[in-house]
Amino acid sequence: MRKKIIVFLYTIILSVCTVTAQQRLIDYVNPMVGTKSMGHTFPGACSPFGLVQLSPDTEMIPHNIDGKYQPDAYKYCAGYQYDDPTIIGFSHTHLNGTGHSDLGDILIMPTTGDVNLDMGSSDDSSKGYRSHYSHQNEHAEAGYYSVLLDDYQVNAELTATERTGVHRYTFPKGTDTGHIILDLTYGIYNYDGKVLMSNLRVEDEYTLTGYRITRGWSRMNYTYFAVKFSKPIKNYGCRNAEKPKYVGWWRKFKMEDNFPEMFGQKLTAFFDFDFTDNKPLEIKVALSPVDCSGALNNLETETAGRSFDEIKAGVQSKWEKELGVLKVDADDNRKRIFYTALYRTMINPSVYQDVDGRYRGVDHNIHQSEDGATNYTVFSVWDTYRAEHPLLNLIKRSYSKQIVNSMLNHYKQSVHGALPIWSLMGNENWCMIGYHSVSVVSDAIAKGIDIDKDLALKACISSSNVDYYDGIGAYKKYGYVPSDFSGVSASVTMEYSYDDWTIAELAKYTGKQDVTDQYTKRAHSYRNVFDPSIGFARPKDKEGVFQSPFDLLDTHNQGFIEGNSWNYSFYVPHDVNGLINEMGGDKRFVQRLDSLFTMHLPEKYYKDNEDINEEGLMGNYVHGNEPSHHVAYLYAWTSQPWKAQSRLHEIMNKMYRNKVDGLCGNDDCGQMSAWYVFSSMGFYPVCPGSDQYILGSPNAKSITLNLENGNIFKISAPKMDDKNVYIQSVWLDGKPYNKAYITHADIMKGGELRFEMSSKPNKKRVFSAAEKPYSLTPTLQ
Amino acid sequence: MRKKIIVFLYTIILSVCTVTAQQRLIDYVNPMVGTKSMGHTFPGACSPFGLVQLSPDTEMIPHNIDGKYQPDAYKYCAGYQYDDPTIIGFSHTHLNGTGHSDLGDILIMPTTGDVNLDMGSSDDSSKGYRSHYSHQNEHAEAGYYSVLLDDYQVNAELTATERTGVHRYTFPKGTDTGHIILDLTYGIYNYDGKVLMSNLRVEDEYTLTGYRITRGWSRMNYTYFAVKFSKPIKNYGCRNAEKPKYVGWWRKFKMEDNFPEMFGQKLTAFFDFDFTDNKPLEIKVALSPVDCSGALNNLETETAGRSFDEIKAGVQSKWEKELGVLKVDADDNRKRIFYTALYRTMINPSVYQDVDGRYRGVDHNIHQSEDGATNYTVFSVWDTYRAEHPLLNLIKRSYSKQIVNSMLNHYKQSVHGALPIWSLMGNENWCMIGYHSVSVVSDAIAKGIDIDKDLALKACISSSNVDYYDGIGAYKKYGYVPSDFSGVSASVTMEYSYDDWTIAELAKYTGKQDVTDQYTKRAHSYRNVFDPSIGFARPKDKEGVFQSPFDLLDTHNQGFIEGNSWNYSFYVPHDVNGLINEMGGDKRFVQRLDSLFTMHLPEKYYKDNEDINEEGLMGNYVHGNEPSHHVAYLYAWTSQPWKAQSRLHEIMNKMYRNKVDGLCGNDDCGQMSAWYVFSSMGFYPVCPGSDQYILGSPNAKSITLNLENGNIFKISAPKMDDKNVYIQSVWLDGKPYNKAYITHADIMKGGELRFEMSSKPNKKRVFSAAEKPYSLTPTLQ
Repeated sequence: MRKKIIVFLYTIILSVCTVTAQQRLIDYVNPMVGTKSMGHTFPGACSPFGLVQLSPDTEMIPHNIDGKYQPDAYKYCAGYQYDDPTIIGFSHTHLNGTGHSDLGDILIMPTTGDVNLDMGSSDDSSKGYRSHYSHQNEHAEAGYYSVLLDDYQVNAELTATERTGVHRYTFPKGTDTGHIILDLTYGIYNYDGKVLMSNLRVEDEYTLTGYRITRGWSRMNYTYFAVKFSKPIKNYGCRNAEKPKYVGWWRKFKMEDNFPEMFGQKLTAFFDFDFTDNKPLEIKVALSPVDCSGALNNLETETAGRSFDEIKAGVQSKWEKELGVLKVDADDNRKRIFYTALYRTMINPSVYQDVDGRYRGVDHNIHQSEDGATNYTVFSVWDTYRAEHPLLNLIKRSYSKQIVNSMLNHYKQSVHGALPIWSLMGNENWCMIGYHSVSVVSDAIAKGIDIDKDLALKACISSSNVDYYDGIGAYKKYGYVPSDFSGVSASVTMEYSYDDWTIAELAKYTGKQDVTDQYTKRAHSYRNVFDPSIGFARPKDKEGVFQSPFDLLDTHNQGFIEGNSWNYSFYVPHDVNGLINEMGGDKRFVQRLDSLFTMHLPEKYYKDNEDINEEGLMGNYVHGNEPSHHVAYLYAWTSQPWKAQSRLHEIMNKMYRNKVDGLCGNDDCGQMSAWYVFSSMGFYPVCPGSDQYILGSPNAKSITLNLENGNIFKISAPKMDDKNVYIQSVWLDGKPYNKAYITHADIMKGGELRFEMSSKPNKKRVFSAAEKPYSLTPTLQ
Repeated sequence: MRKKIIVFLYTIILSVCTVTAQQRLIDYVNPMVGTKSMGHTFPGACSPFGLVQLSPDTEMIPHNIDGKYQPDAYKYCAGYQYDDPTIIGFSHTHLNGTGHSDLGDILIMPTTGDVNLDMGSSDDSSKGYRSHYSHQNEHAEAGYYSVLLDDYQVNAELTATERTGVHRYTFPKGTDTGHIILDLTYGIYNYDGKVLMSNLRVEDEYTLTGYRITRGWSRMNYTYFAVKFSKPIKNYGCRNAEKPKYVGWWRKFKMEDNFPEMFGQKLTAFFDFDFTDNKPLEIKVALSPVDCSGALNNLETETAGRSFDEIKAGVQSKWEKELGVLKVDADDNRKRIFYTALYRTMINPSVYQDVDGRYRGVDHNIHQSEDGATNYTVFSVWDTYRAEHPLLNLIKRSYSKQIVNSMLNHYKQSVHGALPIWSLMGNENWCMIGYHSVSVVSDAIAKGIDIDKDLALKACISSSNVDYYDGIGAYKKYGYVPSDFSGVSASVTMEYSYDDWTIAELAKYTGKQDVTDQYTKRAHSYRNVFDPSIGFARPKDKEGVFQSPFDLLDTHNQGFIEGNSWNYSFYVPHDVNGLINEMGGDKRFVQRLDSLFTMHLPEKYYKDNEDINEEGLMGNYVHGNEPSHHVAYLYAWTSQPWKAQSRLHEIMNKMYRNKVDGLCGNDDCGQMSAWYVFSSMGFYPVCPGSDQYILGSPNAKSITLNLENGNIFKISAPKMDDKNVYIQSVWLDGKPYNKAYITHADIMKGGELRFEMSSKPNKKRVFSAAEKPYSLTPTLQ
């Protein structure tokens, strides 16, 4: 027994030494990237795929005032904007990089002096409990964040487990009484009426429980919580700023003063603590989607008996392990950008289940997961089906299985019989277009993830036949979505067309040839919105008349969403050869791709667009909008595949930087980051659902994939640098490799993919029909 | 095997024959009693102690409009008033006889013609979906209700299981399409803003699920439901009459037209059905406090495969069994009043748990009951501790054990560490005064119900030390609640005083002498609000100054609640001898009791009182107010015990009648009815927590108690009639019985209590000190 302990200790010491001897991967993660301007990322602390994202919030702009949309709300999708002078407090839920938002639940702020329950404004923070701060005194790591709150001289530190946010507040010496403000009125994309009810119970002098039910993007979001303080509460109170029309016999009580059951739609509470011992206050806040006992159980299970420092060490070692799946050899700057991106691919989806297996389904029933399954939420599918989910299918397959099964559970719970469109905290919010979960499911199965194939196909067929959803009924009738049925009918038609192809593919795995046939036919629908007279996609009405007038460059009112026809017309990932035909053949297609990246886009087309600024443009190519993400890789289907290589490096270097404003657009729940991770490895899943990754150009000297099956796959490009971005030749396991793609199976079996790089393109490296990537329409030789 | 089946069938046939051969007990139940004027009873269908009370609602008067109380709401505590000309619909939850209210959840109404989603008004019902009806076409039984809806010529029938309301609507011949209106805006004690959210999902063409969360008397009431129609839905739609400030991407859909996920704060839906087959539509609606899957499971478990008629037969046989605990021999009128009263003692408390054992606690956590325990709600304790709970402790002991354990669970879940004050659907509403659950718990243990005594004592001690509740802190400090701390300080002091006595008694069962001593001291506190100069209770301030001016007859602003000082001064059930002393001795006490029943109460004292009308008065005695309920029995402690006997008969005959306005006051969750049941048996639990029932005067020729322990106890008074209301002598098991009371143990062991009745009082039948009932202050001989 003693011997075993010694061996065990030795192992621990060894692993600690290993970590300290070399720089930790988490030290390359910079959570501040994207916190300025368009990234919509949050700088705070979270655990990989955790329910809690504990992070500072710098301003609250309501989503609407009396129903009128407030455009400034957009900046605060993640609660934090780098340029803001004050921090309101630290709330426990944030989305990573979305373009619409919600959450910001359970805001906590330490203060001193007189208790102030007003949030205040940044113009005059003395009027509120918020505080000034300086970026000099701000520090963010994976799983850890700290900042000095200038107004109170309180040092705030944050860390997290999967379901628990952990705070440590060091008050200035000489503090007699310090306050913790707990503001249940704060929220992201808040509006008057969003909080349907909130509640706070003082269970004992160390423990609170409570809940908040909000009506936002997540239509009924139930956030239950439990709080443990490291010091006893001396005194407490609250304000409910609403005037309830009915209070009943609760009028017997004075809720404002040390009354242990606080309640209301506009509830802000304070708790006083003694600091004469000069010890910091640690606060653990666990969340649950089920109830307060679930939250308390989560808190106990994840943090009982563990100090802030121990919890921080725990979450950082978790991040270290998760990041370790990819070992990168590159210059420091590239490594920082890479690991920051990799970190961002592991924030959403998020766990949405208590440690005891209970969770709230999209039917709002309390479900009990079985066989150790874990339920996930935050499915920004229109974004993430492209590269985020395929990345998980490659490097985080166990997570992906749970995530895809959570989507299938969503389908089973959906009264519409639909897989997630945009699923958030047990609610479908229907944001954006398509039914791309079918792609996620199909890709997972194509990549060999162990999923119930029959259930998957059933879910996909059902999702693609919700006739009242965004023109599906008309799509089935007309072969395209006529503009009579949708303002973005061309985008919708093209995306359904791709989605249907993934269903056709999935059906092959279950041997359902009739389904494959049916959906293969549907997969050709994109052609019905191509205008042969111009070779671009263009919306048409149910009589078959194309929209006129029509502006190829405008993203508004032209039948497209988050993209103009110029960009969107390239969106046929499953049938690039067919697309080339629509556009007039190889030569014209290459010219058009070239033009996309080089043409002049007049300012009027992006100046009022909240998603686009000049930095995010390359000609008319807008990397901040997801429909572009696969476009540079389309050269692989052409006679000039080498043209992708410099473009990709330009995107990687221009659109991703290790700076607070280093993201050219919303991170969109990891999709932007997943694009970077894939592209850095030198390949990209242009068409999820196929088993092919299209070769681009690697952005590191080597990247080693430590696969879950125990195999190791190494991508090496020893000569790669800022100039050597062109591929001379490719070698797989020492043999010349002359295909435009690599398959999933090639990677999973381990080996080495070696790129010989050069500063000049190898224009002779072109591909025969057999060497080109998959296309529904075969390549004619 | 076959033989067993034959025996089984034979048994069934036999029992059916037995029931039909003699009149069923349920035929004596008249659910219409109390539906006019003050009873606040509902005429609809329910199962004994069931969650569902499916009943017609005739008007909706908001509890408040913009915070201003609407006095007319009071009439509609049970949703129905007999004089109303129209029925709005049939909702699934109603309280039995309360004086404040809530619920009325999930209203359903069948209609024909054009769909109308407005409730309309009774002035012009054609403007709404409501319908005229006639009492001639209305019929109510235990577990069954029917009415012809004149405007549509639809015959509506209702029945219920514990958790499921079952409807049968027979539409007129020739109906092509009939509608079912499902109105989630209707509610009892409704107000604008009460519905925090409601939701309806069309799961398939036969099935709906949904929920409604309201903020009413039950502060957060979660009503989940599941609906099964016997016919497929042809077409459906809804209206959400609110203007939500945020709808998000749900704007993609047209919720009003056949969209399966309806949602909003003001939601009214309709469902169309085909009636060309001339078959009636049956609808099963199950409720759950947990979630919709709980409701669906309740529905399946309780009703799957069973027709309306089978379910009706099931619930009526359940009522027959429950009523069968007491077999009465009396004239028809008395039997009707008696069984109606007995029926009403078994409506509340109500089951608040799914069939799978899950329930929502008062902490709003989802709990799982173990060992077959059942959770109950609707604890109108200020009313029901008096006779309702003691009655259950005598004749429904298994239920009582579950109910008391539910109260103890409430205590464990309460952040205040308090047993229920007025607990409703997982919420404490703090209505009325005292902490009388301690009496309920103590009485159950005194009567030998198997309850965890240590937990019970802990709960009672904790409940009596919630210092911020209604002057408890001041009560402990001053020995009474000074008028500075409560507007009803005299009532509160007197009730705490009694409650504390029950804790002292309970402590004896756990051997905690120190607790008994402490609470016995507290039990004397009532003396501190007696003004010796007048011999009446009278509020005084913390300086010890009695309130002045002071009106002994006024029920308002005199320091009392639901009673004036004249009545309330008799409220010392645990120390009647002490009270007699306070009032100046036996002679003056008897005179004062006599005066109470005979004095003239000027009209000004009751004309504006919503609880009292002239019919409910005997002199200054107000039977509709519970503090009077024990008063007639106080003669037992005096030299003229016989005086109670005629008074009791007068109350029984005057205040309880087999008429729609046959109740002189609110039934108050069975307390009024329980008083009648006890008093008819000839005894009453004046002081719950003691094992004594005080003898009154029986109101039947015989009543047989079929006790749960298998013993039979028979009360007989063969000569009892309208004149023979006085007791000549009493015989227990054939031996002369010369005590003023009978003990619980005497009854439980079975036997016969025989009353010799006469038209003249036996003034010689007086009691020695030893024969008198218990009093904290011993009787001096």
